[in-house]
Amino acid sequence: MSATVLNAAAVAADYRAEVRASVEALAADGRRLRILGLLGQSEGPAATYARYARKGAEATGIEMEVRQVAEAEVGRAIAEANLDDSVDGIFLYYPLLDRDKDRWLRELVDPRKDVEGLHSFWSRLLYENTRYLDPDRTQRAILPCTPLAILKLLHHAGMRGSGPEAPLDGVTACVINRSEIVGRPLSAMLANDGARVYSLDLNGTVVFDPAIGRRAHDVRDSTADRAEALAAADVVITGVPAADFELVRGEEIRPGAICVNFSERENFDSSVLDVASVFVPRVGPLTVAMAMRNLARLAAMQH
Amino acid sequence: MSATVLNAAAVAADYRAEVRASVEALAADGRRLRILGLLGQSEGPAATYARYARKGAEATGIEMEVRQVAEAEVGRAIAEANLDDSVDGIFLYYPLLDRDKDRWLRELVDPRKDVEGLHSFWSRLLYENTRYLDPDRTQRAILPCTPLAILKLLHHAGMRGSGPEAPLDGVTACVINRSEIVGRPLSAMLANDGARVYSLDLNGTVVFDPAIGRRAHDVRDSTADRAEALAAADVVITGVPAADFELVRGEEIRPGAICVNFSERENFDSSVLDVASVFVPRVGPLTVAMAMRNLARLAAMQH
Repeated sequence: MSATVLNAAAVAADYRAEVRASVEALAADGRRLRILGLLGQSEGPAATYARYARKGAEATGIEMEVRQVAEAEVGRAIAEANLDDSVDGIFLYYPLLDRDKDRWLRELVDPRKDVEGLHSFWSRLLYENTRYLDPDRTQRAILPCTPLAILKLLHHAGMRGSGPEAPLDGVTACVINRSEIVGRPLSAMLANDGARVYSLDLNGTVVFDPAIGRRAHDVRDSTADRAEALAAADVVITGVPAADFELVRGEEIRPGAICVNFSERENFDSSVLDVASVFVPRVGPLTVAMAMRNLARLAAMQH
Repeated sequence: MSATVLNAAAVAADYRAEVRASVEALAADGRRLRILGLLGQSEGPAATYARYARKGAEATGIEMEVRQVAEAEVGRAIAEANLDDSVDGIFLYYPLLDRDKDRWLRELVDPRKDVEGLHSFWSRLLYENTRYLDPDRTQRAILPCTPLAILKLLHHAGMRGSGPEAPLDGVTACVINRSEIVGRPLSAMLANDGARVYSLDLNGTVVFDPAIGRRAHDVRDSTADRAEALAAADVVITGVPAADFELVRGEEIRPGAICVNFSERENFDSSVLDVASVFVPRVGPLTVAMAMRNLARLAAMQH
């Protein structure tokens, strides 16, 4: 087998068109969408990512300002952006303070402007498998951009399960990364869509059980090691930033598995291309498109 | 049987002494604790509650300012309080805006100043049965005041289960009220401590299964009606504000049940006193003490 390489940038183009249509509909009502990005350092990966996001925003007709803020001003800048009616969405580019303090900043963004979907208001709904804000199911809950981008990529890679209500029914996934930003919410979202998920990190393995029709996810400890989890997985998703990570090799995965890497670093050995059905080498471009889609949804919600 | 009536104000006195000791320890370090309460209306239940809280704060050596704010100023007042180093805790007295907008306000309070424990950062931990902020288990998660006060009252009423790790192991509870502020988090907290909880409201019954040792709570629909839930319950907790609520009668409950009412309105018929072992007619005074205890913990956490 030779894997199809799925390009996240190409998939992003489809979603950008969808977002552009929403943005234009709001513009016709005299409503121009604007995002404020707050950046701690003018150079480095965060600055690159912010420039990248601004391009992505502009490609959908959304105005985006990236502002560099001093540490002492970060709290006030978020508070002012929350209160500023001309700011529809807020994007935080870490590091802004230090590692301990940065984790609190995302809780200070008004959830109604949280295009990243990282405020606990949104993650709580996700972990409770609640898809809508309202009982009439008119206002969809906002989902975190990178996990959402990965779910869209799986759909584009052909994962359909048993229909829209259970798109990952019967699927086994292995996610190597359990960060609060990507790996953990991603695992819960996969389980919400019907998958059984082995979630691996340096602290060990836990399993997220399928949560279709449940109002909570279920997490339990597992003795499964990397070999067992990879051998069982129809989908392998990695996001390991460590240089000493042992790359996933073709012989470790199931023939026909879908493999997705969201780390900046290579996490898969090239031998995977001989065994996987689809390989997604990066997710970033679709992450930005999902943030813009979140903004359009938040704006429609306020409307 | 004739029920013991447990007075929340008497229980509160014990906790006030504990809080006062913490407050004095911080004061010895030159740190004076201060709460800002934001109030929409100068009269009515919220204003009464705020005055009550101020008395409770002062009784523990905590300074409390209650400030009336106009609707247009509420957002800014919260933002300023978040940024103000002289404000350690924030208390919001609803209604502040309208019902739809009020629900967002609690997400705007910095969780590190959220003495009510209602920001989703805290409720998420609660619904995930996570007791500590850190893996070393040094920083306890903040819990919402009224549910926490009710758990303390159950402990004072003699509920011990199988020890501190599972204080409600084997207990069945019935909670009539499933609000996001009290009934729902309370049900999850009871389940986290080992109870099986029938949660009733106008939308029907759900069951929270015992969650000892689990990293999530589990909620499932139930066909149990009021009669069945009450007949099964070792603990009955009510918080129904409706004037037409059919009062819980003695014949509906188990002999020896513990009954707690947190509504401002009577929810139990006096016949309950002949059947229950303990009756708690109100929770309010202990709620205030728990908010002050939360403040002391938050302050220690920042220290």
